[in-house]
Amino acid sequence: MTISDGRIGAKRPGWARWLGSTNTITQQFLTLGGRADVVSLAGGLPAAELYPIPAIQAAARRALETHGSAALEYGPVEGFPALRQLIAARVTAETGGVFTAANVLLTSGSMQALDLIGKVLIDAGDLIVAQSPTYLGALDAWRPRQPSYRRLDWDSHEAGFGEALAKAKFVYAVPNYSNPTGVLVAQDRRAALLDKVIAAGTWLVEDDPYHSIQLDGPPGRSILSHCVARKSGPYDGPVIYLGTVSKSLVPGLRVGWVIAEAGMIQNLALAKLATDLSGSMFTQAVTLDLLERDFDRHHAKTIVPLYRERRDALCREASLHLRDWFEWDVPVGGMFVWLRAKNRAIDTDELYKFAIEEKVAFVPGSVFDFAGEDRSAMRLNFTRSSPEVLAEGVRRLARAIGNYVSSRPQLKGRDRSRGASSG
Amino acid sequence: MTISDGRIGAKRPGWARWLGSTNTITQQFLTLGGRADVVSLAGGLPAAELYPIPAIQAAARRALETHGSAALEYGPVEGFPALRQLIAARVTAETGGVFTAANVLLTSGSMQALDLIGKVLIDAGDLIVAQSPTYLGALDAWRPRQPSYRRLDWDSHEAGFGEALAKAKFVYAVPNYSNPTGVLVAQDRRAALLDKVIAAGTWLVEDDPYHSIQLDGPPGRSILSHCVARKSGPYDGPVIYLGTVSKSLVPGLRVGWVIAEAGMIQNLALAKLATDLSGSMFTQAVTLDLLERDFDRHHAKTIVPLYRERRDALCREASLHLRDWFEWDVPVGGMFVWLRAKNRAIDTDELYKFAIEEKVAFVPGSVFDFAGEDRSAMRLNFTRSSPEVLAEGVRRLARAIGNYVSSRPQLKGRDRSRGASSG
Repeated sequence: MTISDGRIGAKRPGWARWLGSTNTITQQFLTLGGRADVVSLAGGLPAAELYPIPAIQAAARRALETHGSAALEYGPVEGFPALRQLIAARVTAETGGVFTAANVLLTSGSMQALDLIGKVLIDAGDLIVAQSPTYLGALDAWRPRQPSYRRLDWDSHEAGFGEALAKAKFVYAVPNYSNPTGVLVAQDRRAALLDKVIAAGTWLVEDDPYHSIQLDGPPGRSILSHCVARKSGPYDGPVIYLGTVSKSLVPGLRVGWVIAEAGMIQNLALAKLATDLSGSMFTQAVTLDLLERDFDRHHAKTIVPLYRERRDALCREASLHLRDWFEWDVPVGGMFVWLRAKNRAIDTDELYKFAIEEKVAFVPGSVFDFAGEDRSAMRLNFTRSSPEVLAEGVRRLARAIGNYVSSRPQLKGRDRSRGASSG
Repeated sequence: MTISDGRIGAKRPGWARWLGSTNTITQQFLTLGGRADVVSLAGGLPAAELYPIPAIQAAARRALETHGSAALEYGPVEGFPALRQLIAARVTAETGGVFTAANVLLTSGSMQALDLIGKVLIDAGDLIVAQSPTYLGALDAWRPRQPSYRRLDWDSHEAGFGEALAKAKFVYAVPNYSNPTGVLVAQDRRAALLDKVIAAGTWLVEDDPYHSIQLDGPPGRSILSHCVARKSGPYDGPVIYLGTVSKSLVPGLRVGWVIAEAGMIQNLALAKLATDLSGSMFTQAVTLDLLERDFDRHHAKTIVPLYRERRDALCREASLHLRDWFEWDVPVGGMFVWLRAKNRAIDTDELYKFAIEEKVAFVPGSVFDFAGEDRSAMRLNFTRSSPEVLAEGVRRLARAIGNYVSSRPQLKGRDRSRGASSG
């Protein structure tokens, strides 16, 4: 940007440093997602054909009838009061704890919650202990604050890990159907982590966007709920819980929430004030109308069977075409299947280029790894496309793998048999 | 927060450093604004009774009919495509330049644009040259990035100022009805500043939220338009222009926009992706529906006469009760009157406490001053309240001033006559 090319004032100041270490992969997916000839198994988008358009139309009408100008106003920065109260009541009912509106901040999706948490806690170099691989959006959100990372080891009993926790500003985990791996973290591991977090005196960010996408049985009990069980009275624990209607309703309302102790909520609100002044009272009032009717819970029952069918279609087709090279666990919830190369010499960053040639997109595993080391996995989304499109995508991916392996003689000769035998 | 008080995990990590240098004044105003017994001349809120509720209800219905699931989706991060195109077309028509959707980023109000500009340009210690006093929200937005500041001197010809501009990441100005002063910056000053910015090779952020609130004649030609006039072809100038529907329509849709050269838009979009993934396609589609009908321009014609009447009521009452102690220019647009104490020994931070006792709120000038030096001015808003309420507010303020001065013998004796004689 400092090269003069005849533009007015073409000499320009430098960009902030973090921009030099970011990537444009999410933007690439969004662009590819718009190309009709590409089968995208990349993004993390819901099935648009299930968006409840008439219900939202009716909710918008009622919200303006009921709340009038209050639904068109700059908000209280913490969010539309009645929606905060409703969410506090739901969390109270779900966990048995004592939550009020003072424990709730409404955000522009969970993504804004991640940005705000980084703003109030992270200075350059500060440590985050994160489940790895980690949700790409969280790494994006915190990059401008230039944190350092350490991998969350759920089962670690070594002193070094406890010391790292004590130094960390917070722990980040997605225990229900993790993004990207789809893993459902076991109850005892959740409880054990909470013990360590309390002992270390740090915060624990529990990100729970996929809660409603329960494909085979219920999700785990939240770490927030574990925390509540340890002490009665108004909530003051270290768990910062993130929820959203993006998966259970629609993403385009941009309504999510943070549940935390009141002091944390106050500082997050201060950061939100400095970020966008307030959320949209209009979309918050529309969301209130729908949640008052439990519409999101009913709607989730419509979504789940369709997503289950799609997950099964993707896994079935993958078993037919990809198992020589990749292995995976069938996820019991969420939106993704995480494929690990049997041969660690397979580089999914490289494979991605062959996939685009075959007009199929996925997310290479490297972008979920803050250390940038794991390059042998990939994330496939199954919620956005029909079973037929998913099958076609997998067949294209199989062709891409074939082409990639053919172009890498060392993989084809030595490693294919090794790969197959380890499956 | 590190004091153990029996809470679970009550030992907690420290907050990010910038939180130690912030203030909670905006939150205080929002709280006071909700107290029925306080007359708030503080905030910067539009007249809620003019919010066009039926028009927005109809627009929401039409937006979902027309755009269906596209209006409920995660967006392209740059915003709803047709709204970006409409805004590009408007800017093209207004300036005579060549703008396309690639020059437009939709934001969650102008406030988010300020946050994103800080994210892509500012590292700790970087310099911003800002019109002073400065919009409080801009100072809030940039505080987490820990910039340094220098005062923008529109008329400076000294070499030192040129050198400062060359070091600055950007210049920040609100040339139309500045917040907080209400000043309309003259055309020749705008052109002269643009010359210096181009020579220095920096960016210029032109924030224009009050454009539609033209109480006495039109606003000035935008600096963006000056820039366009210097060079034909696709826009690539250093002006980053910020617009919003918060004042011309309603704030609760949270729709604003940035106009800039395409490379800047790309980096701002990358920062937005890391902040909230995307704006609300729903409120952007609703805004599109309204702007396609020029509803915002028609609506501004409804707003302006009412605001003019309120401005006149406030200034008339201030002339009756406040002129012994304060002086001001009647603003030709915008939402505020900026009162300067005739006696610089008057401290409006102190006066504020007396005002709250009398149940009236204003914004003390100190919060608009990045150097924290100017404590002898205050900002009064006239758009939110009826003429009767404004008059009552001014009378309460006069009582507060009386009480304050009585409690400060040095002001009462020596300085009152000095104050009055300078008016």
